[in-house]
Amino acid sequence: MDPTSDPSLKSFVPVEEDSHFPIQNLPYGIFSPTPREDSRVGVRIGDQVLDLAVIQDCGLLDSANLPADILSYPVLNPFMELPKKQRRAVRLLVSGLLREGEPTLRDDENLRRRALVPADSVTMHLPVAIRDYTDFYSSKEHATNVGIMFRGKDNALMPNWLHLPVGYHGRASSIGISGEDVVRPHGQTIAPDAKTPSFGPSRLMDFELEMGFFVSSNSFQGDPIDVDQAAENIFGMVLVNDWSARDIQKWEYQPLGPFNAKNFATHISPWVVTMDALAPFRSTAPVQEPEPLPYLRESDRHTFDINLEVHIQAENDEESLRVCSSNFKHLYWTMAQQLAHHTVTGCNMSGGDMLASGTISGPDKGSFGSMLEITWRGTEPIVLPGGAERKFLADGDTVTMSGWCQGDGYRVGFGEVSNTILPARNLQ
Amino acid sequence: MDPTSDPSLKSFVPVEEDSHFPIQNLPYGIFSPTPREDSRVGVRIGDQVLDLAVIQDCGLLDSANLPADILSYPVLNPFMELPKKQRRAVRLLVSGLLREGEPTLRDDENLRRRALVPADSVTMHLPVAIRDYTDFYSSKEHATNVGIMFRGKDNALMPNWLHLPVGYHGRASSIGISGEDVVRPHGQTIAPDAKTPSFGPSRLMDFELEMGFFVSSNSFQGDPIDVDQAAENIFGMVLVNDWSARDIQKWEYQPLGPFNAKNFATHISPWVVTMDALAPFRSTAPVQEPEPLPYLRESDRHTFDINLEVHIQAENDEESLRVCSSNFKHLYWTMAQQLAHHTVTGCNMSGGDMLASGTISGPDKGSFGSMLEITWRGTEPIVLPGGAERKFLADGDTVTMSGWCQGDGYRVGFGEVSNTILPARNLQ
Repeated sequence: MDPTSDPSLKSFVPVEEDSHFPIQNLPYGIFSPTPREDSRVGVRIGDQVLDLAVIQDCGLLDSANLPADILSYPVLNPFMELPKKQRRAVRLLVSGLLREGEPTLRDDENLRRRALVPADSVTMHLPVAIRDYTDFYSSKEHATNVGIMFRGKDNALMPNWLHLPVGYHGRASSIGISGEDVVRPHGQTIAPDAKTPSFGPSRLMDFELEMGFFVSSNSFQGDPIDVDQAAENIFGMVLVNDWSARDIQKWEYQPLGPFNAKNFATHISPWVVTMDALAPFRSTAPVQEPEPLPYLRESDRHTFDINLEVHIQAENDEESLRVCSSNFKHLYWTMAQQLAHHTVTGCNMSGGDMLASGTISGPDKGSFGSMLEITWRGTEPIVLPGGAERKFLADGDTVTMSGWCQGDGYRVGFGEVSNTILPARNLQ
Repeated sequence: MDPTSDPSLKSFVPVEEDSHFPIQNLPYGIFSPTPREDSRVGVRIGDQVLDLAVIQDCGLLDSANLPADILSYPVLNPFMELPKKQRRAVRLLVSGLLREGEPTLRDDENLRRRALVPADSVTMHLPVAIRDYTDFYSSKEHATNVGIMFRGKDNALMPNWLHLPVGYHGRASSIGISGEDVVRPHGQTIAPDAKTPSFGPSRLMDFELEMGFFVSSNSFQGDPIDVDQAAENIFGMVLVNDWSARDIQKWEYQPLGPFNAKNFATHISPWVVTMDALAPFRSTAPVQEPEPLPYLRESDRHTFDINLEVHIQAENDEESLRVCSSNFKHLYWTMAQQLAHHTVTGCNMSGGDMLASGTISGPDKGSFGSMLEITWRGTEPIVLPGGAERKFLADGDTVTMSGWCQGDGYRVGFGEVSNTILPARNLQ
């Protein structure tokens, strides 16, 4: 086992048992210690952020032979593009530095004050300069639910769905992080029996519970990534809320797919959990029947056991309601298959590309990953703790997604992606 | 009239009457004078490239108050993001410098040798760091043709088509320029009566004749761009060949739109023609019936009269065949409408975004912009000059698109986007 993942490891930084950020995790993010200071790379540990720019500057990572200042960049991309071996060396050094028996940082009060910053005092930023964003549709349960609603039980899954990981290109510019607000979008919609569309704020705002992964480095145009090599190209994962305006989507999506229904905002969690940290939580992926074509067959097919939850809290409510409890392991198509399929045409990947899973619904009702499914197209409204009913999302609602792997007495988690819906703007 | 567009202007650099690059054009591109030198901004004039890095370095653009070295960058983005007034000042200075009566450059042999480089000796590069790429579907003739083939005459246009500019997010990473080869992609396809898909090189490779425009600068998330302000956000235009694998597309595109059928390559012409150069070729845009919703109504609706041609040349043929003669002015949805629709949700634009038109087919057979339409799904093959028949494109075929505005005795043109299809790679 990778020594940085040893469940018995402890840090001298206090970490609660239900914290998402024990020493076994060490996710990377981009933060500014204070609003006036430059943003740089940090690692989350318990309630603290370890400032890697400071740590590199002090020479504590010298044995990893990193390019100068690579942890002082305002995005993770240069670090992500390093060879895996070098990134692992950094993880090992950081893990060693934070270990409870290690005095270097623990006993140097001056260094500790500069290098360890309370997480609630920093400003987090988008961790990666996201080049292209692709969104898949890899949950069989989600595709089936949507299919039943729109086409009936007998044609729920499209004929292609079991043969390839269906996906589409998304909008990269409007991806933001947890804590940012989302403005209800305007758009064209059509009333059930109307002949012509009308224009106004979307009335069917929805979330989609997803996870995304970042591609670590560039691949060449014309060169597919083999499904068994794909894991080498994945840096780490985040939670993704793929906001959707269902009424806009319904009117616009034929024949070229969702466009304005999705392009106004997508939010991710700010800490990128590496594949090294997730390795102990490998899990079997669903058996595929029919067997996919050879380029999608994995010699070591696996996924990850990541618990996922979605909570909704209305503006004036004091409590939130858990509306979904799902798991990443339900997904039918794996990240490796997504990457192999995406590139089999020769499409080149860039370091910083984000590939998202599509809505992660599980097999039973409590595990559906969108309001569309939870309220079954609005026919079964839910009631929030304050008594308000919801078919879709209302202004002021805060949607919070969280995700974690459960170890024995500790969690390796993603924190959360939590964002509030603001009313539509007045357009002139 | 803008003095730089005066049809009577002449340059001391020789320009043939059918050249696309007279002094009225002055398109921007990124080039390296020799392979070892850094790429920088150039302006095309006749058969020469004016090296703007040298011109700025000599102080000849000082009155435009440009940021230092802004014309020495390897992409146009920093220049594109300058206020329009400043970009116009550069155009005026460059036009003045190249004018036949102006001795500054003409009579300074040393400067001329450094600043004017034969176009056939330079290496051209992708002119813009393309952030997000969106492809529209704005030709009524194209959408109708495709609709008839796939759904019959009575349902040719989808119900939404006349109400909004249908579009989808494309793949930015695989956009290249004229002269690069395109490798025939592999993918999943399904035979007409098969129950399961097969895997192999696409058998139905197609081009799509399109044009694209570049967004000049960032807009804010949540802030739509008004249709009457949209022109202010457009820097210039290029020719676009949106390569398509029709057999992959047919199997994969439901319900989320084209993905692998398009993501392997898109090629553009290397010289970006500015909206200032195109202004004299404004033309009325098609009347829209029904009238679109208010956010898509233009107070000054117009398009541009740009002649477009596509030629195909087989590998061993000495001649090419003109397979399409179309015009940009046929498009039903204008660039301003595309930009207004794209952002009406609050989707933010970035400087360097490319928005393409979709296939530009005209009303009659000779004006169809894809093999799908030209051969009517392969039912009416064409014969190339060497005698070979084509339903779709073959390995070794070179597809060349060109475009120009016809003035009185001169042309303002785009040059061409010309690329050759290489056979599919052997996949292990």
